[in-house]
Amino acid sequence: MTWFQHTLQLPPYSRGFHLITSRVVNAVPELRRLRVGLMHLFLQHTSASLTINENADPDVRVDMEASFSAIAPEAFPYVHTLEGPDDMPAHIKASLLGSSVSIPIANGELALGSWQGIYLCEHRDRATPRRLIVTVWGEADEANRK
Amino acid sequence: MTWFQHTLQLPPYSRGFHLITSRVVNAVPELRRLRVGLMHLFLQHTSASLTINENADPDVRVDMEASFSAIAPEAFPYVHTLEGPDDMPAHIKASLLGSSVSIPIANGELALGSWQGIYLCEHRDRATPRRLIVTVWGEADEANRK
Amino acid sequence: MTWFQHTLQLPPYSRGFHLITSRVVNAVPELRRLRVGLMHLFLQHTSASLTINENADPDVRVDMEASFSAIAPEAFPYVHTLEGPDDMPAHIKASLLGSSVSIPIANGELALGSWQGIYLCEHRDRATPRRLIVTVWGEADEANRK
Repeated sequence: MTWFQHTLQLPPYSRGFHLITSRVVNAVPELRRLRVGLMHLFLQHTSASLTINENADPDVRVDMEASFSAIAPEAFPYVHTLEGPDDMPAHIKASLLGSSVSIPIANGELALGSWQGIYLCEHRDRATPRRLIVTVWGEADEANRK
Repeated sequence: MTWFQHTLQLPPYSRGFHLITSRVVNAVPELRRLRVGLMHLFLQHTSASLTINENADPDVRVDMEASFSAIAPEAFPYVHTLEGPDDMPAHIKASLLGSSVSIPIANGELALGSWQGIYLCEHRDRATPRRLIVTVWGEADEANRK
Repeated sequence: MTWFQHTLQLPPYSRGFHLITSRVVNAVPELRRLRVGLMHLFLQHTSASLTINENADPDVRVDMEASFSAIAPEAFPYVHTLEGPDDMPAHIKASLLGSSVSIPIANGELALGSWQGIYLCEHRDRATPRRLIVTVWGEADEANRK
């Protein structure tokens, strides 16, 4: 059983949905050593989130932002308004989407479907750096261990 | 520590919510050997998803389909429309529900509540086969190992 | 590799969003022994759910309840109505939010962000006890093992 854990500081992203697959994969080279295992990503924030979705047409990310902002709109009688009109909708989106994703590892690679990518979903208007905990565990491939 | 990983090809399901608990359990007989562990299901697609919900009254699945289609409606000014009016709502539902579920294993069985079942959520109008990666890991029950 | 699994009986909570972080952490003292690992929480119900969100201002929890009840409203032509008007919306919220959360463990502690807390989300009007399966696995810290 092999464990790896890294803290990744993501640069500030603008409000919206952003592909971070290669950034994550490059940060965990130890991934290649695992014959079978899991990768767990955890975002340490409550106004941004993680999800897995289409990695090709950038229009999908534009529509995701518009749709989630329609599902959790700013125009709602929120009580918690001190941190700005985008804050409470950000908390709701964070729970709709979730603060973690987990992806199986097979033969040293993430077993993503061909159209799947990892998204950082930034729900605040003002971009800030976000902290991501990457935890990987599994069974090492003996052949790759030398 | 014991690991099992299987790729399951699911048959085409019609648009809607479908119980797949027994299909999944039957595909992983090694489950029974684990005293404690976890099962992780990962769907390699971005227009279908997985969730856990009521396993009894089929009306619940009918209402789930109607409700999620109201939350992520086809009537919305999407930019990404080339793949049909059901495609962009499918991506939104996939992120609302998620591409994975994970369930604890206790004494060789999934520790599901009595009313819980695993759903495949098909969000496209046209049914297609879907690929599911089942990963199971845990501590083997020595008594069951012989 | 070390595994711990506990079944936690949560007391009845009123409809809404409730912080349960310390209750969970106190129930798993073995957590402190792990240098690196994961904690998985699984709720064995289909009309309540788990999520991670802001642990400070209680108004956030009030707004979460109002917002999720607007996203999955009682006023909808549901077919499954036998168990009361709050039942079908409860199932939808359970799938929107999810029946599990997983949190990385680093140096014997949950690696939560400073503003993150674990929520039990009770979606039924009538409060009932809820059962939570807590599974923890990881690599023990040798120094803490004596």
